[in-house]
Amino acid sequence: MKKEKTPDAQVISRSPFPASRKIFVKGQLHDISVAMREITLHDTKIHNGFGATEPNPPVTVYDTSGPYTDPNAAIDVKQGLLRMREAWIKKREDVEQLEQISSDYGLQRLSDAKLDELRFAYARNPLKAKPGMNVSQMHYAKKGIITAEMEYIAIRENQRIDLLNEQLGAQYGVMSHQHEGHSFGANTPKGYITPEFVRQEVAAGRAVIPSNINHPELEPMIIGRNFLVKINANIGNSAVTSSIEEEVEKAVWACRWGADTIMDLSTGKNIHETREWIIRNSPVPIGTVPIYQALEKVNGKAEDLTWELFKDTLIEQAEQGVDYFTIHAGVLLRYIPLTAKRVTGIVSRGGSIMAKWCLAHHQESFLYTHFEEICEIMKTYDVAFSLGDGLRPGCIADANDAAQFAELETLGELTKIAWKHDIQTIIEGPGHVPMHLIKENMEKQLEHCSEAPFYTLGPLTTDIAPGYDHITSAIGAAMIGWFGTAMLCYVTPKEHLGLPNKKDVKDGVITYKIAAHAADLAKGHPGAQYRDNALSKARFEFRWEDQFNLSLDPDTAKEFHDETLPAEGAKIAHFCSMCGPNFCSMKITQDVREYAAKEGVDEAEALKQGMEKKSREFTEKGSEIYL
Amino acid sequence: MKKEKTPDAQVISRSPFPASRKIFVKGQLHDISVAMREITLHDTKIHNGFGATEPNPPVTVYDTSGPYTDPNAAIDVKQGLLRMREAWIKKREDVEQLEQISSDYGLQRLSDAKLDELRFAYARNPLKAKPGMNVSQMHYAKKGIITAEMEYIAIRENQRIDLLNEQLGAQYGVMSHQHEGHSFGANTPKGYITPEFVRQEVAAGRAVIPSNINHPELEPMIIGRNFLVKINANIGNSAVTSSIEEEVEKAVWACRWGADTIMDLSTGKNIHETREWIIRNSPVPIGTVPIYQALEKVNGKAEDLTWELFKDTLIEQAEQGVDYFTIHAGVLLRYIPLTAKRVTGIVSRGGSIMAKWCLAHHQESFLYTHFEEICEIMKTYDVAFSLGDGLRPGCIADANDAAQFAELETLGELTKIAWKHDIQTIIEGPGHVPMHLIKENMEKQLEHCSEAPFYTLGPLTTDIAPGYDHITSAIGAAMIGWFGTAMLCYVTPKEHLGLPNKKDVKDGVITYKIAAHAADLAKGHPGAQYRDNALSKARFEFRWEDQFNLSLDPDTAKEFHDETLPAEGAKIAHFCSMCGPNFCSMKITQDVREYAAKEGVDEAEALKQGMEKKSREFTEKGSEIYL
Repeated sequence: MKKEKTPDAQVISRSPFPASRKIFVKGQLHDISVAMREITLHDTKIHNGFGATEPNPPVTVYDTSGPYTDPNAAIDVKQGLLRMREAWIKKREDVEQLEQISSDYGLQRLSDAKLDELRFAYARNPLKAKPGMNVSQMHYAKKGIITAEMEYIAIRENQRIDLLNEQLGAQYGVMSHQHEGHSFGANTPKGYITPEFVRQEVAAGRAVIPSNINHPELEPMIIGRNFLVKINANIGNSAVTSSIEEEVEKAVWACRWGADTIMDLSTGKNIHETREWIIRNSPVPIGTVPIYQALEKVNGKAEDLTWELFKDTLIEQAEQGVDYFTIHAGVLLRYIPLTAKRVTGIVSRGGSIMAKWCLAHHQESFLYTHFEEICEIMKTYDVAFSLGDGLRPGCIADANDAAQFAELETLGELTKIAWKHDIQTIIEGPGHVPMHLIKENMEKQLEHCSEAPFYTLGPLTTDIAPGYDHITSAIGAAMIGWFGTAMLCYVTPKEHLGLPNKKDVKDGVITYKIAAHAADLAKGHPGAQYRDNALSKARFEFRWEDQFNLSLDPDTAKEFHDETLPAEGAKIAHFCSMCGPNFCSMKITQDVREYAAKEGVDEAEALKQGMEKKSREFTEKGSEIYL
Repeated sequence: MKKEKTPDAQVISRSPFPASRKIFVKGQLHDISVAMREITLHDTKIHNGFGATEPNPPVTVYDTSGPYTDPNAAIDVKQGLLRMREAWIKKREDVEQLEQISSDYGLQRLSDAKLDELRFAYARNPLKAKPGMNVSQMHYAKKGIITAEMEYIAIRENQRIDLLNEQLGAQYGVMSHQHEGHSFGANTPKGYITPEFVRQEVAAGRAVIPSNINHPELEPMIIGRNFLVKINANIGNSAVTSSIEEEVEKAVWACRWGADTIMDLSTGKNIHETREWIIRNSPVPIGTVPIYQALEKVNGKAEDLTWELFKDTLIEQAEQGVDYFTIHAGVLLRYIPLTAKRVTGIVSRGGSIMAKWCLAHHQESFLYTHFEEICEIMKTYDVAFSLGDGLRPGCIADANDAAQFAELETLGELTKIAWKHDIQTIIEGPGHVPMHLIKENMEKQLEHCSEAPFYTLGPLTTDIAPGYDHITSAIGAAMIGWFGTAMLCYVTPKEHLGLPNKKDVKDGVITYKIAAHAADLAKGHPGAQYRDNALSKARFEFRWEDQFNLSLDPDTAKEFHDETLPAEGAKIAHFCSMCGPNFCSMKITQDVREYAAKEGVDEAEALKQGMEKKSREFTEKGSEIYL
C-alpha cells in the first residue's frame, strides 16, 4: 500500500491521444467553449494514381478526458481544474456562497489539524440556493430557460456531424441530414440536437444533466435515451487497499478512456478528503452512494443508522459537489421477504444495508419516510437522484422476479415525488439477467417510471464466467442500451473476485464504450456511424496509423499490430499481417474494383439481373454481359 | 520462430481442471463411452448450524478437451489419439481401406524423402466408401439408422441433467423434467435429447455431425439450433510465423478452453504435414478452406486455379480426415459488381480469391459449375459442406446489403443440391453487422436455406474497437446464437491487427463460450442454467474454490481473487474482497434470511400485500403485520 498523503501531479495521465488535438466550439446563446477531440487523418493514396492523393477530413469525437489530454492546459491537481461553470452559475443570481460548510461532519473534519496534510488546500466555501430557490436544471427547463449547460450539451452531442455529414455523408449515404430541429422516433434520433431539444427532454424528465452547483469544474453532459448512450465507471478505495493519490488518477484514467460519469464508492477512512480531491479534479459528474459513508460513521452497524446522520451526510457531500446520489429508497419492508427464497438474496450493498435496518427497526427506511426532505436538499444544490435498485438480481435464477419488479414500481412512485420538486431523477436497474429477459426490464421501467432515464449495471447474461464479467455484461449492456437505457454502469474483469487495478478499469471502460457505441449504432444515432465508416475506410486503404488513431484504444491497436509486424514499414504495407501479401482480401478487392470500373460494370444493372434470378442463363451467356 | 520439426509432447497442455475428473457414460444402443467432466463441490456449511453441513452434488459439464485432461489417458502426439470411431465405422461395412492415398499432391508429398522428418509416422491408408455407397450421417439418418455417433451426441448433449435435475431442479424449480422424448419449440428445448431426436434433426438437415470416416479420433458433436450452441476456433500458421508444433498445441489449447471445432487455416509451407498432425491429435472436428491450399499450390495466383487442382486438394484433405470444407460456391459473377461501392469491398479471403478468378476468366467459378462433383467426393468420406459467405460485410456500412443477401439465396439453392446427395451442410454468415440488423440475417438464412444450420463469424457490432473485437463480436454472437445460429466462429483480440498468440486464442475461446452459453440460457436449453445456479449458490455461500472451479476459466478466476486477497484463509472467508466484512451484501442477506425465517415471514402473503399496493397503510400499521 502506498503512503503518499496528497496527489502527485506526476502520476496523473496527461499524454494527448495520437494525431489528436482539442478543438473548442463556441456557443451562440451563451459564452461557452465546448471541448472536442479532433483526429487528423492521412490522405488516401489513389491506387495506380502515380502518387496522386485525396484528403480525408479530420474526425471529431466526443471527448470525456477533460483538459488532461490538452497539452495547452495547465493542470495542477493541488489547485483543481478550472471552475468553468462558476460564472454561468453565478450569473443566474439564485445562489449564495456560504460562510462555512453546513454539515456537522464536514466541520468536524475541517477542524481536525491532523488532516491538514491530507486536505485539499484550495477548497472554497460551498454555494447553496438562495432561500426558496430551486437551482436544478429541471427547474430551469420547466420554466423554459435554456441554460449554458443545455447549450453546451447540444453542441457536444452533435460532435460537429454537420461538417462530417457534408464531407463523409455524401460519400456513403448513411447519415441523414436534417437541419430543421430534432425529430426523434421512440429510440431513433434523426437529426441534430438543438439546445431547445435538450431543454424539452430535461423538462419532461426524459433526460438528466448531473451538475451540482458545487462542481463547477465539470464539462456538462446529459443522460437520456434520446442522446448518446453514456457509461459510468466505479472507483473507490476500501478497507483493504488504495490511497488518495490512486483514487484521483483512477478517475482521470477512467475519463481518459471514456467514462462519462464516475461513481466514487470509497468505503475506507478519509473518504471525505478523498472525495474532495476527486471532485476538484474531475471533468465528469461524480456520483456516490451516501449510505456507504453513513454506515462508515456508525462503524458498520446498519441498525445504528439514523435519518439525522444520513441527512448530515447528504449535505456534507452535496456541498462538496457530488452530482448524483444513489438512494435506495425503494427497499420496502414488504419486499424483503420476497428475496428469501432467491439463490443469491440481496446483492446490492445499499439494498442489503437498508434491508437490515428495516428488519432491525420493524419500520420503513428513513430514505422512504423522509423522501421529501431529501428532495429539499437535492434542489438546493442541484444533486440528481439515482434511485437505487436495492433488490436487483444477483444471478440468472433471480432475474425479473417479484422483488425486483415490486421495487421498480416504488421507484416509479418516488420519481413522481422527485419531479414534483423538479429534482432530476434516474432509475437504477439490472444486475444478472439472461438475454431473453432483458427487454422486459426496459419496458417495465419505461412504464412504471414515466420514461425517467434508466441506468443499469450490465446486465450480466450468465453467471459462469467470473474473471470475464466485463464481457458477460457487455452483451447485456449493449442490448439494454439499444432498447433505451441511457447510461450503462461498467463491470470490470474483477467483478465478484477482487478490486480492479488500472488495467481492469481501462478494460471495463473500453468494453462499455463498445457496448454504448454498439447501442448508438443500433439506435441510428447520427453521431455514431461516421467514426465506424472513417475507421473502415482507413482499414480498407491500409492507412494503419489512421485505423489505430480512430479506434477506442489506439495504444492497444498499435501494440497488437506491432507484435506481429513490428517494422515501421509494415504500417504502410498494402497487406495485413494475418494473411501475407497473396492472401490479402482487401488487396484483391482493390483489384476487383479497378477491374469492375475499367469494364464499366453497372451496379444497378447487376442488381436488376440478380433480382431476376437469371443465374443459369448468365452462366451460359457469361462474361459478355457484365465484364 | 521455433525450429522444431515434429511435435514435442512436453509442450502439449495436459493438466486436468481443478476438482474435476473424467466420467464416462455408457450407451444403450451402441458400445460407446461418452466422456464428460465432473466437478466435485464442497459441502455447504449451515450458518449457525454448529458445524453441520449439507452436500452439494457434483456438476457434470460438456467437455471438449478430449483425453488431454484425463490423467489416466496415455497421450503420445507421435501416435495420435485413440481411434475410437474406427470400430463403429468398420462395423457399418460400407467402407474400404485404400491401398494408397488417392490425391496426386498427397502422393507427391509422401514420396519426398526430405519431408520424412516432418511426417506423421503412424498415418494409415485412408478409408473410402465402397463404390456406390454414401457414408454420410445424413444418409444414415434419412434411412432411419441411429448411428453410434448419434447416440454419443444425445448422451453428450444431456450432460447428465437427468441426475442434476433430481438433485438441483427441485431446489430451484427452473429446469423442466420431461422424460417422454423431446418436444422442442422453435428455439426452446424443453426436455432431454434422445438418439432418435438427433437422427431426425440430421435427416431434416437442421443439424450436422461433422465426422469424416478418416478422422476416427474425434468425439462426435452436433451443430444444430436445437442443441447447445457450438463455437469454432481458427488456428493456422501463415507465411509470416509459426511451426507445426505450435499448431498442434494451439488446437489442443483451443479445445481445452471450449472450442467445439477447429478450423485449420494454415497458409504457409508444409500445411499438408501440419494438417496431418493436427487431425491425428484432435478430439474435435477439423474444418478447412481448401481453396487456401489450392492457391498456395499455384503460388498465390488466383487466376491459375483450376478445377482439377482444386478437386485433387479436396481428395487430399478428405483422405486426411478433414470433417468439413468451407466452399465459397455462392460467389457468382453477377454479385461481384454489387460489392464495388462498398466501404470495404470483399473481405472474405476465399470470396476475394474466387471473385478474382471469376473476373480473370469471365466465367462462373469451378466451385459453382462443379458443385455436384464436389458432392460426389463429400459423400465418399462424409465431409460436410460449410458453404462460405464470400461476400460477407466487412464493416457496419456494408451490413445486410444486396451482395450479401444475393449470395445467401444462392447458398440456399446449393443446400438443396447438397441435400439431394445427402451431404450434411451448414451455411456461413455475418461479419460486421450492427445489432438492429442481426435478426434479419437469421430470418433470411432460415428462409432461404431451409433451416440448414447457420454458422456465423461474430458478428462484430461496431468497427471502432480494433484490439477488442472478441468483445465487439461476442455481443453480436450471443444475440445471433439466441436467434438460432448453431455455431459461432470466434474472433480474437488480434482480429484485423495480427496473428493471435496463445493468450489471444484462449481469450477468443472463453469469450465465445460466454456468448454461446448466454444464447443457450436465452433459448432455455435444459442443459444450460444448472451450471449458473450451482456457481451462484457457491458464490452466495462463500465457497470460493467451488466458484472458481465451476467457472469457464478457473485459473483466471482464482488468480484475480488472489491478487487482492492472496492468503489461503481468504478463500474460506465469509466476506468478499471488494467490500470488507461490514459491507458484504451476501453476508447481510444471510442475516436477513435468518431473520425472515425466524419471524415466520410468508412469501405468498408478502406478495399479495405488495399487489394490493397498501404501502401507505403498511407504513402506518408497520411492523406487526410482517415481522
